Amino acid sequence: MAKRRTDLGAYQPEIVAGNGLLHRRALLGRGMMLAGAAATGVDGSLTSAAAEPMVDPAWTNAPGSLMLPYQVPSRFEKDVVRAVDNPNNLPRNTRARTPHHLLNGIITPNGLHFTICHGGVPDIDPAQHRLVIHGLVKRPLVFTLEDLARYPKVSRIGFVECGGNSAPLFSNTPIQANVTALHGLASCSEWTGVLLSTLLEETGIDPKAKWIIAEGADSPRLTRSVPVAKALDDAMIAMYQNGERIQPGQGYPMRLWLPGYEGNMNVKYIRRLQLTDQPTMSYYESRTYSQILPDGKAYRFYFLQEVKSFITSPSPGLALKDPGIYEVTGVAYSGTGRITKVMISADGGQSWGEAALQDPVLPKAFTRFRMPWRWNGGPAVLQSRAWDEGGNVQPLRADFVALRGQTSRPPDVGAFPSQHFNAITSWGVSNRGEVNHVYA
Amino acid sequence: MAKRRTDLGAYQPEIVAGNGLLHRRALLGRGMMLAGAAATGVDGSLTSAAAEPMVDPAWTNAPGSLMLPYQVPSRFEKDVVRAVDNPNNLPRNTRARTPHHLLNGIITPNGLHFTICHGGVPDIDPAQHRLVIHGLVKRPLVFTLEDLARYPKVSRIGFVECGGNSAPLFSNTPIQANVTALHGLASCSEWTGVLLSTLLEETGIDPKAKWIIAEGADSPRLTRSVPVAKALDDAMIAMYQNGERIQPGQGYPMRLWLPGYEGNMNVKYIRRLQLTDQPTMSYYESRTYSQILPDGKAYRFYFLQEVKSFITSPSPGLALKDPGIYEVTGVAYSGTGRITKVMISADGGQSWGEAALQDPVLPKAFTRFRMPWRWNGGPAVLQSRAWDEGGNVQPLRADFVALRGQTSRPPDVGAFPSQHFNAITSWGVSNRGEVNHVYA
Repeated sequence: MAKRRTDLGAYQPEIVAGNGLLHRRALLGRGMMLAGAAATGVDGSLTSAAAEPMVDPAWTNAPGSLMLPYQVPSRFEKDVVRAVDNPNNLPRNTRARTPHHLLNGIITPNGLHFTICHGGVPDIDPAQHRLVIHGLVKRPLVFTLEDLARYPKVSRIGFVECGGNSAPLFSNTPIQANVTALHGLASCSEWTGVLLSTLLEETGIDPKAKWIIAEGADSPRLTRSVPVAKALDDAMIAMYQNGERIQPGQGYPMRLWLPGYEGNMNVKYIRRLQLTDQPTMSYYESRTYSQILPDGKAYRFYFLQEVKSFITSPSPGLALKDPGIYEVTGVAYSGTGRITKVMISADGGQSWGEAALQDPVLPKAFTRFRMPWRWNGGPAVLQSRAWDEGGNVQPLRADFVALRGQTSRPPDVGAFPSQHFNAITSWGVSNRGEVNHVYA
Repeated sequence: MAKRRTDLGAYQPEIVAGNGLLHRRALLGRGMMLAGAAATGVDGSLTSAAAEPMVDPAWTNAPGSLMLPYQVPSRFEKDVVRAVDNPNNLPRNTRARTPHHLLNGIITPNGLHFTICHGGVPDIDPAQHRLVIHGLVKRPLVFTLEDLARYPKVSRIGFVECGGNSAPLFSNTPIQANVTALHGLASCSEWTGVLLSTLLEETGIDPKAKWIIAEGADSPRLTRSVPVAKALDDAMIAMYQNGERIQPGQGYPMRLWLPGYEGNMNVKYIRRLQLTDQPTMSYYESRTYSQILPDGKAYRFYFLQEVKSFITSPSPGLALKDPGIYEVTGVAYSGTGRITKVMISADGGQSWGEAALQDPVLPKAFTRFRMPWRWNGGPAVLQSRAWDEGGNVQPLRADFVALRGQTSRPPDVGAFPSQHFNAITSWGVSNRGEVNHVYA
């Protein structure tokens, strides 16, 4: 007979904050973790947790299926997909959001990287695609993909986040939705390509050049202004994503990647970089992706994705089953650089304990944090708060909305306020183990 | 009119080894890289490299397509797939090899991670799958996937390599094949799961236990013996691969991952771990995956994948087009720990220059190396040689085969010798720019 283990026995783990947050090493070496494992017969007789006798299942008794040249996830993972908000491809923008609550680690697999397109996903023939660098340069140049292949390349793990990610949190009441809907417009990959500074060494730069107008080859011809200083710092013409060619939703065959800058500036399908002495004031930067502050002024040309974190598990849709030990985990990131600390609260911010950060902690990349938590079966409010190496701290929601505003309208990208929300997210846990979005 | 740039002008870059190998920073800040970029009109008028006038292509003038919930690569990348050697799923083993020459960075995307199965790819229902730990333990336990979700987890980027990877290089004549065929049974991912040591703390360990018999749930019930010491070091029950659930070819819903140990020990579809006082001498370890040395003795219970590297570009199938600058790049890795150095030769080992290693350099993970090379249009032999933090160096082929043997039969996994080839690979470049596998 199986016996489910349901408590920590006599062991009292080190509590570091209220409502059951345990020291991140409290359980190591204890052998008393009660994560629901069931006892089995001492002969290893495969008595299952539910005490039914275990027999070899079908897949152990018959050969498996064909091996695919390009492998796909198990059919049992069919619900682990991006949430697409324009499934009939009507003539407007479309967003596909990453289902963070079903993922783990820091890499977002290519199939699930978020996408926003303003005119559908283009089908670009890489042999015909060109990148032109012109304007205030000494030698205007045209690059094919084959040309770029010969240049020195760089690989770097880093995030891309839409400036409108987390826009629903500008609502003056907590919108009931899961992590996908609330924070699914950020993802993290290993990007490989040629540094833009390398190509600008080829073209030379006129000292008058201060801005670069970056233009995409898809039908909206999305155009954004990028400071030359950023281009010479860590900007990349990225051609590979997690090892393979960039997928169509991320800019196949090449995109501009500006580590830490808001998503739409990382112009996909990049075809043109024009060096100029002033920004272009394009539609996409003066209308779609500007942020109007409560005093009516624009928060325009504010590019940085500031320090942020959110808990991916537990989270809405992932109910807690029984009281006991759980892992609280999520991602933290900052456009400024490395994450230095993530604190967790289980009592709505009254007390905090420090989470473990998964190595390697990379600049401008997702950092996975983890912390053990003993849920006592009562109500709880889970929060995470991140710090970065620039000394920045993720703001409390109340402080953030006092400065940046909130709204009673349905929040959306393009509505205001909608941009650069980076305050704390709170998950309320009910005494039935349900998890909801709350303000605390 | 377009003018293709074809030389370095007056600049003489720093040469670090024979036949055109340049210092890894030789081209930085020079603006004279001649990677084939074409000049354009000073007005940026999009004159292409081939001097045809550029007009907006179809994808710029029409809306794009539907956004997919689970994104896939562009149709133009249809040839970037694994090479499957048993496409009709006959009742024998099947290998799907990673096309390294078409990839870049250190992450292998999940669709292209190599797979070997001895009985096809099983279709396992994760809700029915169980992991049993029994034998010489204090408390035998059964874990469901849901149980494991609650335990403290760890993410780690690392490689898996089949012990038979590179087996064709045991041939006494250089087999003409590409990187996929020669080295495609190694891949690198971010793996997330529960450390096996955590679960063994739950079960407790009888001091008599020295080995763990690991058994898979697929029809071959592949069984291997793992030292308890490795299990307590860095072994993981992995459930996620590059963020999402492990794909069916990598062991869905869970696999044993033993960083740095030969692939088949990383038992996929893991369902049973039995602690014992001796190894099991299973079919898969005494027959399939043993290595017979020239003196007739077995190289059995030799688990480590030793320090190794290979150049992925240029490589067979990627011909050089024109004389000039190219990036020589590839991957290096070691089951012992971090890669400390990769040296490149363009003259068959007569002289060597040091390659740049891409940060972060992680233990037991792929490390991407890169080096600029000026091909003068004459014959060349490209080689890479890696060192690891254990002080180990990748052997020369002649030294390796003197110790471990070579064969005139068609080499294959299961034939002998076939296991743990880690000597230097040589790519011969002809004066027409073709790249072939050579021994040098």
